[in-house]
Amino acid sequence: MIKTPVIVLNVKAYSESMGEGGFKLAKACEEVADETGVNICICPQQTDLSWIAKEVKIPCFAQHVDAADPGSQTGWVTLETVKTSGAIGSLVNHSEHRLKIADIDAIVTKARKLDFATIICTNNAAVSAAVAALKPYSIAVEPPALIGTGISVSKAEPEVVEGTVKLVKDIHKDAVILCGAGISTGEDVKAAIELGTEGVLLASGVVKAKDPKAALLDLTSGI
Amino acid sequence: MIKTPVIVLNVKAYSESMGEGGFKLAKACEEVADETGVNICICPQQTDLSWIAKEVKIPCFAQHVDAADPGSQTGWVTLETVKTSGAIGSLVNHSEHRLKIADIDAIVTKARKLDFATIICTNNAAVSAAVAALKPYSIAVEPPALIGTGISVSKAEPEVVEGTVKLVKDIHKDAVILCGAGISTGEDVKAAIELGTEGVLLASGVVKAKDPKAALLDLTSGI
Amino acid sequence: MIKTPVIVLNVKAYSESMGEGGFKLAKACEEVADETGVNICICPQQTDLSWIAKEVKIPCFAQHVDAADPGSQTGWVTLETVKTSGAIGSLVNHSEHRLKIADIDAIVTKARKLDFATIICTNNAAVSAAVAALKPYSIAVEPPALIGTGISVSKAEPEVVEGTVKLVKDIHKDAVILCGAGISTGEDVKAAIELGTEGVLLASGVVKAKDPKAALLDLTSGI
Amino acid sequence: MIKTPVIVLNVKAYSESMGEGGFKLAKACEEVADETGVNICICPQQTDLSWIAKEVKIPCFAQHVDAADPGSQTGWVTLETVKTSGAIGSLVNHSEHRLKIADIDAIVTKARKLDFATIICTNNAAVSAAVAALKPYSIAVEPPALIGTGISVSKAEPEVVEGTVKLVKDIHKDAVILCGAGISTGEDVKAAIELGTEGVLLASGVVKAKDPKAALLDLTSGI
Repeated sequence: MIKTPVIVLNVKAYSESMGEGGFKLAKACEEVADETGVNICICPQQTDLSWIAKEVKIPCFAQHVDAADPGSQTGWVTLETVKTSGAIGSLVNHSEHRLKIADIDAIVTKARKLDFATIICTNNAAVSAAVAALKPYSIAVEPPALIGTGISVSKAEPEVVEGTVKLVKDIHKDAVILCGAGISTGEDVKAAIELGTEGVLLASGVVKAKDPKAALLDLTSGI
Repeated sequence: MIKTPVIVLNVKAYSESMGEGGFKLAKACEEVADETGVNICICPQQTDLSWIAKEVKIPCFAQHVDAADPGSQTGWVTLETVKTSGAIGSLVNHSEHRLKIADIDAIVTKARKLDFATIICTNNAAVSAAVAALKPYSIAVEPPALIGTGISVSKAEPEVVEGTVKLVKDIHKDAVILCGAGISTGEDVKAAIELGTEGVLLASGVVKAKDPKAALLDLTSGI
Repeated sequence: MIKTPVIVLNVKAYSESMGEGGFKLAKACEEVADETGVNICICPQQTDLSWIAKEVKIPCFAQHVDAADPGSQTGWVTLETVKTSGAIGSLVNHSEHRLKIADIDAIVTKARKLDFATIICTNNAAVSAAVAALKPYSIAVEPPALIGTGISVSKAEPEVVEGTVKLVKDIHKDAVILCGAGISTGEDVKAAIELGTEGVLLASGVVKAKDPKAALLDLTSGI
Repeated sequence: MIKTPVIVLNVKAYSESMGEGGFKLAKACEEVADETGVNICICPQQTDLSWIAKEVKIPCFAQHVDAADPGSQTGWVTLETVKTSGAIGSLVNHSEHRLKIADIDAIVTKARKLDFATIICTNNAAVSAAVAALKPYSIAVEPPALIGTGISVSKAEPEVVEGTVKLVKDIHKDAVILCGAGISTGEDVKAAIELGTEGVLLASGVVKAKDPKAALLDLTSGI
């Protein structure tokens, strides 16, 4: 559903990515994707999802989806609504938004039926292997201690990425494997791909950059 | 911040209120507000909030807001983002999305500083009194057992509404008091206002109606 | 750590298993284990764990353990405390007490170091396979819809049990595989073992029985 | 139900308070209560509750109780079970174990019927006032930032304690008001009582002390 290699930008709930800020970040991703031919996806803030998905041509993802079916679910975000919004998928189980395993299974199972792309975030190789058994579209391994540090997982903890690639490919060979945590430069992206992943998931490296478009261009240089 | 008496429509996560369905419901509210002069607010699905807030002139509310500050909060919804989206407030602690009391306090305190309208949902008169001590903008009492039944709280359990009005006014006289659960007709609205509330909070009575606009028109007849 | 085949009795938080009731159930398990030579383990109510573990010779398990290390964790139950109480292990992720996958991984990893037996409960074969990748001591598959019904998983949904056995053995061949939900007779136990499990996990079939000891004796007849 | 002034010792989940360590702490409390005539209550680790409640004559409290009724509630702790264990009450909503407001209300309401003492922990004066509206047996205000610091709330933030006393007495004059966070000496206790409380709630000041009995004796000197 997404072309790889891919750069997935999670704008989190930063003040820089609210409203117009989030819109400009999405437009910057679109421009860089256009200019470089590199696939870039964006995860807008949850309340901006429908709006931004209507405004950009690049693929949009929700930052989170709940294990809830349409109905009396005030304030919860169903997979069906996310799909209707124009997004093609969702991050699931991000380090800042962990889920119960039975709920991850329910979401992945429903996503398969609805042709919806789930990117399941994990904290290490063992949990990546566990998630692989549920056969999700994609798995993104992110050691929590490196998130937001600028110290890239692909350079500082390559064994976590390699371990994930090895274990996941054994259990679910079609999984799109990404890595994240501390990714901020083209070199980090290059290292990630050399370790066997098909892309990266990142946030602060672009959102907090003085010049987000320049940061994105640098990232694409690693592909 | 909202003119009273008021009708607040929570579209929940129903399949009828996703995407275009939610947009049409918002437009129906806007039309009925225009035609009747009655104040109507809408709570779109979370991922549709920015989009719909840009498209309608009536006040929009989030269905839920998390006790999180802007930052590394993947998938959580901050008050700051909701405000930036164009919404004027949020439901908080809905029966289907309960919060910890310390978190309700944190949200209400921040909302006061940011001139943001919180409607704190409660399940009975005692909890309404407790919430009143936090001095929120509005309190909406909704006995959970009646939600979605079509049996209106204002007619079936008037003592819950009266008890809430009495206790809340003693502690926080400026609170806008609403009631909800089972509200679906103008008579239910009339009964709610006669019990001392300044409006109603409802969902399925309009969202699931064959003709939502007609249902809204009927509701406004109670004011 | 536990001899198999095994019957694991979870007394839940039933009124029948509080205080003296729980003590008598533990003693009944001990007597039946003595008389029949069948291995029986008990999971007392959480607040009774240290007390009952001191009073019976059969292995005791906690009903739940939190992913918390010793420290400032008011009201949470650490694996270290459970082990110190005299219990040899804990149920983890019961249908009525689900956990986040990163927390299950943390508990299983710590349990391996401390020679502590985790029985990870799962709801279907796919989640059993996922959990197997974490290499826990034991996995107990229990379809939630059958729990407490008296309709036994081993007879009503043998494919869930067989699927679990097949998938788990491929990923973690040393796992002790149990099944549960609706188990109440020796025939149910026999069917479970014929499907490739090494025992059963049950609750109401004994706790709610008019004569719990007779119910236990009947269960052992299936082994 | 408890005689005041009172010192309530929460042993949390510290390694020092597991098993025999917890037993010795309970015995030290009993000895100091005997020797000084000061009322001391203890909150053992959850899994030690029945055991320790049988071994000491001083009042025992659970560290936490869930808003669950007896039944299929694996691993949850009901008020009924805590009462059956011999404890006379429970901490509720501790800073490390926050609850939803509707659940606090459910627990307080049930506790009143069962003559069970709830000590509801709060983080500031406003939340104390909110909780007071639910009419619990006792309220213990503890600013989270001071917990475990040794900087006592009664000396460092007296206005929080005074504000709590004033607001709570207005709403629920019979409440037993305690304060906690950083309490470790008799002077801290004295200051707390001079601010209008009827006692203190503390943990590390005794549990982590080189000589817990000496620490307890020092605390009683403040009464």
